[in-house]
Amino acid sequence: MTNISIITIGDELLIGQVIDTNSAWMAQELNKAGFWVNRRLAIGDSREDILNALEKESTESEVILITGGLGPTADDITKPVLCEYFNTSLVVNEAALENVKNIFVKILQRPLIERNLKQAEVPASCIVIQNKRGTAPGMLFEKNGKTFISMPGVPHEMKGMMTDDVIPFLHKRFGEAFIAHRTILTSGIGESALADFIQEFESALAPEIKLAYLPNYGMVRLRLTVTGKQAEGLESLLNERFGQLKSLVGEWMVTDEDRTLQEVLGKMLTERNQTLSTAESCTGGYVAHLITSIPGSSVYFRGSVIAYDNEIKKELLDVDPGLLSAYGAVSEEVVRSMVAGILQHMQTDFAIATSGIMGPGGGSEKKPVGTVWIAAGDARETFTQKLWFRFDRQRNIELTSANVLNLLRRFILSRRPPDGLPDLIN
Amino acid sequence: MTNISIITIGDELLIGQVIDTNSAWMAQELNKAGFWVNRRLAIGDSREDILNALEKESTESEVILITGGLGPTADDITKPVLCEYFNTSLVVNEAALENVKNIFVKILQRPLIERNLKQAEVPASCIVIQNKRGTAPGMLFEKNGKTFISMPGVPHEMKGMMTDDVIPFLHKRFGEAFIAHRTILTSGIGESALADFIQEFESALAPEIKLAYLPNYGMVRLRLTVTGKQAEGLESLLNERFGQLKSLVGEWMVTDEDRTLQEVLGKMLTERNQTLSTAESCTGGYVAHLITSIPGSSVYFRGSVIAYDNEIKKELLDVDPGLLSAYGAVSEEVVRSMVAGILQHMQTDFAIATSGIMGPGGGSEKKPVGTVWIAAGDARETFTQKLWFRFDRQRNIELTSANVLNLLRRFILSRRPPDGLPDLIN
Repeated sequence: MTNISIITIGDELLIGQVIDTNSAWMAQELNKAGFWVNRRLAIGDSREDILNALEKESTESEVILITGGLGPTADDITKPVLCEYFNTSLVVNEAALENVKNIFVKILQRPLIERNLKQAEVPASCIVIQNKRGTAPGMLFEKNGKTFISMPGVPHEMKGMMTDDVIPFLHKRFGEAFIAHRTILTSGIGESALADFIQEFESALAPEIKLAYLPNYGMVRLRLTVTGKQAEGLESLLNERFGQLKSLVGEWMVTDEDRTLQEVLGKMLTERNQTLSTAESCTGGYVAHLITSIPGSSVYFRGSVIAYDNEIKKELLDVDPGLLSAYGAVSEEVVRSMVAGILQHMQTDFAIATSGIMGPGGGSEKKPVGTVWIAAGDARETFTQKLWFRFDRQRNIELTSANVLNLLRRFILSRRPPDGLPDLIN
Repeated sequence: MTNISIITIGDELLIGQVIDTNSAWMAQELNKAGFWVNRRLAIGDSREDILNALEKESTESEVILITGGLGPTADDITKPVLCEYFNTSLVVNEAALENVKNIFVKILQRPLIERNLKQAEVPASCIVIQNKRGTAPGMLFEKNGKTFISMPGVPHEMKGMMTDDVIPFLHKRFGEAFIAHRTILTSGIGESALADFIQEFESALAPEIKLAYLPNYGMVRLRLTVTGKQAEGLESLLNERFGQLKSLVGEWMVTDEDRTLQEVLGKMLTERNQTLSTAESCTGGYVAHLITSIPGSSVYFRGSVIAYDNEIKKELLDVDPGLLSAYGAVSEEVVRSMVAGILQHMQTDFAIATSGIMGPGGGSEKKPVGTVWIAAGDARETFTQKLWFRFDRQRNIELTSANVLNLLRRFILSRRPPDGLPDLIN
C-alpha cells in the first residue's frame, strides 16, 4: 500500500486558533481510494520547519501532500520555500494568470492588484494543477522517486483539487491497493464491556482484518478494515466477519452503515413518509441543526421552536405555567408538555424536546449543572429520559442532542410503521 | 522559548473518521502559557510508528506531549509501546486502582471487569498523573533530557489533566517565556486588499513582532504576536503597534478582542440590556446554536422559530401567504416578514431571519443553490442583504450564519443605544 504523509502549514494551527479539518477530510478520501495516510503533520510558517518537514517526511512516505501557506500575504511562504527545496525559481504560469484575472475581473468584479498577480507565479520545475475554485494553483514535484503535491489551504479549493486531479493522478501513478471498511454504530454499551463481549471474535480475526473501537458522544462505532493487494477473497472474508459481528452486537446496533444518527433517522423518516419537529430549550437549536445538516431533510423536518425563555415555552409551546412553577423547566413534566405543544403547532408525526442546565452557571444543589430531561414521542405516547453530564457546555449540548436523537430512533422503532412498510427499518 | 511536539495516536485520525480537536486545544492553552508548539503529529495505532515518532520528535522538541491509545481495548497499544521505548514494565498503581474502582462501583454503578482493572497499570519508571475524570492515568517520563507526557485521548480528561497538572509542571520545569497576542476581527475587506492596505505598517514591524492573517467565514482576523525573554518593553511595543493597526483598519474592525462574532453580540446585548430572537429557515437552527453556545446567553436570547416548512412560516411567523406565492420563500419580502413575525411572537428588541437554498438540491435557474436572503431589524426598521455562496451545504450554512450575525451587529450599532449608554459599544 502506498504510504502518504500530509503536511499542513500555518502558524494558526500551532497556536490552536484554527482546527485542522483539511487533513481529516484528505485522509478520509485517500483511505477510501485505497491509500494509507501514514502521518499527518502540522507545522508553522517557518522556512526551516518547512524544509525540515519536506526532507523528513520524504523518508517516511512515498507521497507527501502539502496544504496551506499559498495565500497572497507576507506570512504565506510555502512557494519560495518549495523553490529552495526543489532548487528552482518562480515563473509566471499563463493559464494560472488567466484564471486569476478571470476571478477578479469577471467574478469578483474587484480591481486586480499586484499582489493577486503573484498568485500566478509557480516554481519552474513543477507540474501545475490549475485551481478551478480560487487563485492559488496546485504544484506537483518529483524528487528522488518521491512525489510532492502542494495545494491551497482554503478547504473547498483543496477539496476540488483532490477530487478532480490529485486522487486520479495517484491512482494512475501508484495503482490501486484494496482497502474496505464495514462499520457498526452501537449504543447502550460502554467500550470496555463491548470489548469484553466480543473478545473471542476479535482474537480470532485474520491478520488482514483490523477491528477499531471509535467511541463518540456516548456511542461506540466498531470498524472492521481489510487491506491487501486485491479485492478477491478479502471482500467476502470481510463480509463474513461483519455478519458475525452484527449478530454478536445484536440489539446494541444502531446501524450497520457508516452513517451518523441523524442520517439514520432521516432515512427512517423518509422511508416511512413521516415528519418531525423539535422543541428545544437547553440544546438551543443544535438538534435542529444536526437534522437540517442532512441534504433532503426538508422532506421530513418541518421546523422547531427554540424556547430558551420560559415565557416562550408557555406562549409558543402551550406549556402549562403551573407545571413550570411546580416542577421547574428542567423536569419530566415540562419536556413531556413541550413534545405535546410542538406536535400541536407543527402537526408532525413525531417530536422531541430537551430541557437542561448546560453550565457553567445555572446549577443548584437539587439540579446541578449537567442535569437534563429529554423526550421523544407522538400524539399517543412519549418516551422520557433523565441524563446527567459532567462536561463543559459544548459537550453537554452535543451529548444531549445525540441522546435525544437516539431516544427518538428507539421510539420510532417501537411504533408500528405506517401500512405497507416492513416492521424493522434500518 | 521551550519547543513542544504534540503526538496524537489513533488510526481513526489517519482514516479521517475523527477530527483532531484535542491537539488544537492543547496548542491554544500551551501558547497562552508561553510555550511554542513546534509540530503536531498524528500517527496510527502501530508499534513501529509510535516508537519512530517518539524518537524523531525528541530530536525536534524539548517536550513531547502524547494523547490517545490508552483505552481498555486491544487497539490501544500506547502503554506497552511506552514500556518498550523507556525500557520498563507495567506495574499496578494503587491510587489509579482506587480511582478505577471508585468510578465503576460508586459513580457508574457498573460491574468492574478485568479489562478495566488494567487501566490502573502503568510503566514502572514513570511519574503517574492521576486522572480525576476517567480511568486512564497520565504518565510522565524523562529521557536524555527530554520530557515525555502521555495523556488519555478523551477530550475532557485530557483537558483537565493539562490544566491541573501538565501546564503547572511545565511552568515549574522550564520557567516562563513571554508571549502575547493582540487580535482584530475585520469584516468587509478581503485578505489581499487588507494586506495591500497595511503593507507599510507590516514591513516596518520589529523582528520580535509577527503579523498573521487568519481568514475565516468571509472575515479576516489579524493577529499581532510578540515573543521574547521577558515582558518588559515588549508589551508596550506590542500595544503601540496594535493601536496603529487599529486606526489603520478603522471601520472594517468588528472587535479588537479575540472574540467570536457571537461573543461580541452577546456583550453588546448584555450591556444594552436588550433581547434577541431568530427566525431561521435555511440555517435550520445553526444561528441559534451559535448564540446559545455562549454561557449567559439566556440573559439576552429568548428563542427562535425554525420554519423549515412554508406552512410553519405562515402559522408561527405570520408570513403572508401572498408574499410566499408572489416572491417565493427565498426573497427579501419574506425575510422582512419573518423578522416582523418573530419580533411579535417573542417580544424581543431585535430579531434576525434567514431564507436560502443551501444545496445540493433545491436550486433553480432564477435562484441557484447558494442564493440566500438575510435580515436583521427591530420594530421600526429592518436591514436586508442578498448573498450568493458557491460552497457545500455545511459551509453555506456557516457563512449565512456569520453574515446574519454581522448584519445584526451593524444594525445594532446604527441604532441609538438605550438611555444612559455610550453611543458606540464595542
